[in-house]
This record gives sequence, structure tokens and C-alpha cells, in this order.
Amino acid sequence: MIFPEDKNLARALEFTVEMDKMKSIFRRSSIFDGSRRENDAEHSFHIAVMALAFEKYAPEGVNLLRVLKMLLVHDIVEIDAGDTFAYDKEANLTKKEREEKAASRLFSMIENGQELRALWEEFDAMQTPDALYAISLDRLEPFLANCLNKGDTWFAGGVGKEAILKRMAPIEKGIPALWPTILDLIEENVENGYVSD
Amino acid sequence: MIFPEDKNLARALEFTVEMDKMKSIFRRSSIFDGSRRENDAEHSFHIAVMALAFEKYAPEGVNLLRVLKMLLVHDIVEIDAGDTFAYDKEANLTKKEREEKAASRLFSMIENGQELRALWEEFDAMQTPDALYAISLDRLEPFLANCLNKGDTWFAGGVGKEAILKRMAPIEKGIPALWPTILDLIEENVENGYVSD
Repeated sequence: MIFPEDKNLARALEFTVEMDKMKSIFRRSSIFDGSRRENDAEHSFHIAVMALAFEKYAPEGVNLLRVLKMLLVHDIVEIDAGDTFAYDKEANLTKKEREEKAASRLFSMIENGQELRALWEEFDAMQTPDALYAISLDRLEPFLANCLNKGDTWFAGGVGKEAILKRMAPIEKGIPALWPTILDLIEENVENGYVSD
Repeated sequence: MIFPEDKNLARALEFTVEMDKMKSIFRRSSIFDGSRRENDAEHSFHIAVMALAFEKYAPEGVNLLRVLKMLLVHDIVEIDAGDTFAYDKEANLTKKEREEKAASRLFSMIENGQELRALWEEFDAMQTPDALYAISLDRLEPFLANCLNKGDTWFAGGVGKEAILKRMAPIEKGIPALWPTILDLIEENVENGYVSD
């Protein structure tokens, strides 16, 4: 393929080719009809469009543009590092190292990559209102997939109520109005036998 | 599944469930490795992350937040209306009617849906700098998929050079620095016999 002479424009095109790989990184969670696992591109689209729908319920002062940027790049490190299942303790021990290395390569591909890398780091640190809102959406989407599919990855992995509560905790600050519903849904899954108490 | 009592919050959740269907609407174009067709969720993610990479090359005064909103919702009408192949003249005769009906249903699902519907209409009209930048990305992504896969949908559909030039024309204003490369890439595909002259 022919690339433009302008070096940074050529880099934006190369980054575009690289981002296509997100469509082939499959996650543990399923699409909502339960027919197959979803990939990182689908997941990233889903939570970005959710950010538009839940904006009114985000913490005060949230900057939607920063949130969307975070959501669009939050998983690109998985192109090199692969998807790490949230409840896999062993894989999570090496996750940080693998993802830092991936971030160094991927975010240096484009001119404004360092701004995006900083947003990815802010997302991971889960401290700012923007990051709390973004991470809440990232946690909510596979949570709903499990609720709609008889516990799916919770049931398959024997994941208990406490682990799910810990995983979902950012929503209490990130989308506070939704927190009581999250608690109700976890109880519903415990009652149905899809989650161990 | 339990839904919250707050009606608008419940609607945001219902919209989230609806948006999952984007993962099951398959387009004519392939993912870049050519192994399978891509779906609307993947395509929408891809062009949204491309909007971050090409921002410097967008027309002056482009508002990236408005562009990202446009890109995230530009294809949701296909949940009801289905994907219409760009070069299928017959299907394009009924496209507008089918998509307007879909828009009425889908954009009324959430509280801020009318703002998003207006952005979708602006995107479709291709007049403002934001819409021209957004539509350029929407056209560029399947164009690159074809360039990387021996003409793919152009070759299969017998699509000629003039039709492709017309389809890609928004890029001349939407990402002007890329226009000469687009022309070179079309010529390359004509020379290789993937596109008829």
C-alpha cells in the first residue's frame, strides 16, 4: 500500500491499520444475546456510546471528551498484552508489566500519543471523576452481559459475591444513581444460584 | 433483569441493551486481515479511534467531541434499517425512508436523543466541517480495507474508478492532506486490475 510522504500523516495511517487488530482480541464476556464472546473493538464501541447515554448520571464536572478518549484507548494495550480476565489472579500479577511495554510501543505510534497515554494511565488509576465515570462504564458492560446470560463468566469461573462487589465498587462514585440497582442485580444472581454467596 | 425506578436511568440501561445489537449487524467490508466481514460496532469503534489520530489533519475549527458523538451514533439506525451497501443503487432508493423510521424509534429511547439525532442528520448532510471530517473517516476505513485486500468489495461488485472517486470525494475537504494519497491508492488498484477504469 502507498503511504503519504508527510511522516505524521503516514503514522496516523499505520496506527489505523494497527487499531484493526482490536477486532480480533476476544474477551471472556459474551455479547448480550450470549451467542459468542465479544472482542475489544465491540466492547470499546459499546462503552463509548454508553458514555453518551449515561452522561447525566456522571459525577459533577465530568469532561465527556476526555472520557471518550479514555474509553477509546483504554484497551489498545491488549493488542500486544492480550486480554487479562478480571478474576484471574495469576494473570493479573504480570498484567501491569505486559501492558506498560505495550503502551510504550502503541502510544508512540502517533504524534499525540503521549496525551492519550496519560489518559490511559489516569483511567487505570481510577481517581479523577473522568476516570471513575469511564471505569464504571467499562465494568458495567460485562456486568450486564452476565446478568443477561445466567451469570456467564461468574458462573463459569466460580466468582463469588464479594469479588463482584469489589470489581463493581467504582460505580458507587462513578454512576452513583445506578449503585442500588447494581446491588439488587448481584442479589438476584445470588438468589438464582449463578453467583456464590 | 431488574431495572432502576428512575425512568431516565432505566431508559439509559435499555438503550445500552439495544446498542449491543450493533455487534450483530455485518457490513460488506472486511476486517483488515481479510478473514471475515466487520460489524457496525467494530466499524464505529475504528473510525472513532481514527478521529483521535487524524485530528491534526481535520479542517480548522473542528469540534472533536461533536465528531465523536456523530461517529458513535452514525450507524445505529442500521439496528432497524440494516446495512445498505454503498454501491447498491436499488437498496439506496429506500435507504432514507427506512433510516428515518429507525431514527425516530432509536433516538427517542434516551433523554438526550434529540441532540444525537440532530448530529446524525448533520453527519448525513455532509456540509459542516465536523460532518466532513466525520464522513471522511467513515469512508476511509472501508477504503483501506479494500486497498489491503485486493479490492475486496470493489472487485466483487465490479465497482469502477468513477464511483469510488465520487464516494471518497468528501476527503478532499475533510482530510485534505490525505487526498493525494487517496488518488494514488485508487490508481494503484486500477493498475492492479482490482478496480475497472
